[in-house]
Amino acid sequence: MKQRAVVLLSGGLDSATVLAMARAEGRECYALGFDYGQRHRAELRAAENVARALGAKEHRVVRLDLRAIGGSALTDDAIAVPDAPTEGIPVTYVPARNTVFLSIALGWAEVLEAEEVFIGVNAVDYSGYPDCRPAFIEAFQQLANVATRQAVEGRPVAIRAPLMHLSKAEIIRRGVAAGVDYSMTISCYDADEAGQACGSCDSCRLRRAGFEAAGVPDPTRYR
Amino acid sequence: MKQRAVVLLSGGLDSATVLAMARAEGRECYALGFDYGQRHRAELRAAENVARALGAKEHRVVRLDLRAIGGSALTDDAIAVPDAPTEGIPVTYVPARNTVFLSIALGWAEVLEAEEVFIGVNAVDYSGYPDCRPAFIEAFQQLANVATRQAVEGRPVAIRAPLMHLSKAEIIRRGVAAGVDYSMTISCYDADEAGQACGSCDSCRLRRAGFEAAGVPDPTRYR
Repeated sequence: MKQRAVVLLSGGLDSATVLAMARAEGRECYALGFDYGQRHRAELRAAENVARALGAKEHRVVRLDLRAIGGSALTDDAIAVPDAPTEGIPVTYVPARNTVFLSIALGWAEVLEAEEVFIGVNAVDYSGYPDCRPAFIEAFQQLANVATRQAVEGRPVAIRAPLMHLSKAEIIRRGVAAGVDYSMTISCYDADEAGQACGSCDSCRLRRAGFEAAGVPDPTRYR
Repeated sequence: MKQRAVVLLSGGLDSATVLAMARAEGRECYALGFDYGQRHRAELRAAENVARALGAKEHRVVRLDLRAIGGSALTDDAIAVPDAPTEGIPVTYVPARNTVFLSIALGWAEVLEAEEVFIGVNAVDYSGYPDCRPAFIEAFQQLANVATRQAVEGRPVAIRAPLMHLSKAEIIRRGVAAGVDYSMTISCYDADEAGQACGSCDSCRLRRAGFEAAGVPDPTRYR
């Protein structure tokens, strides 16, 4: 039987690359996304296209109302997405988001009897979010080692973060090699309904610089 | 300023007791519940009443569709709630549920700048769920120590599980002392619309035995 993996898929550049890498490793991939009240809802349609194009076995979107707790420019309309770099952890940080996403992925992995959960976090060309750092992934692995029935039965899920130490340019090069069509992906925090990117938010800046550094034409549709 | 705490509140006996204990310790309490597609939806109304009666500052219910991943008698109608004890981890175990609930509590705590998250897990008179054990809470604390902006700034949230080592009878005695009206709470996994309990599921059995052992009249409305 093929090894099963749950792959967190946002519709952005990084998670699409991770899905392609997991598929290239021969995994049967179960893509998991979240309709969490995010401002940039265009990423949900992007994720659907990416999951299909990269041969995910299944793609599920869990509804989860993070607007009920707010606290981020992505989940509270009263907080604007900055169009220039800011000091410290940016307001686009969604409190505990990766913890929540990994937790639900852990649950689905258990239902599927999957061996792995893949997440596209990165601590090189990133926004300084605390839940994208190696220490966070290591701590989540420790938690996964005791949290579930699978763990109790001696088969804890492995948390895989293959992009952790790659630059954005390296991520893009690997994705291109693995067949990712980045024109399908949306990274912008403030993408419009048609999926066009603002070009100036943190996420757009990192993405654009990545394509430049990789020497790959940027297929992003800017508005 | 009063110390703030997020208190996970299900509407059941244990979490009501925890809320009363946190209030008795002088905390300003923010009760957090989940509409996760649970079979026993009567607990949602119970939680609302309990939060009000015990003086929670606020009570929020986050919608989260765990039926999208299923895998439990509580979130999949095709799996029945057993009416007699079973071997091992019961089918009422919801994969990664406490991990998910604590994660969202962690996020809300960060938004509120709360110092603590309280959860009513117990490893004495319990159903053997892996995410109710001390090792699980310790691992979640380690995760909380690195996962958030609060953690990065040196103020990680403390995860408090004050019922961990108490018997059900002790929990009930402490709750009575702290003013909990247990007639408001619903523990049954298969409670009907009117909030009447089945009396035979795992949760009903533990609860009934607890009242007997505590020498406290059982106010549960059995059908």
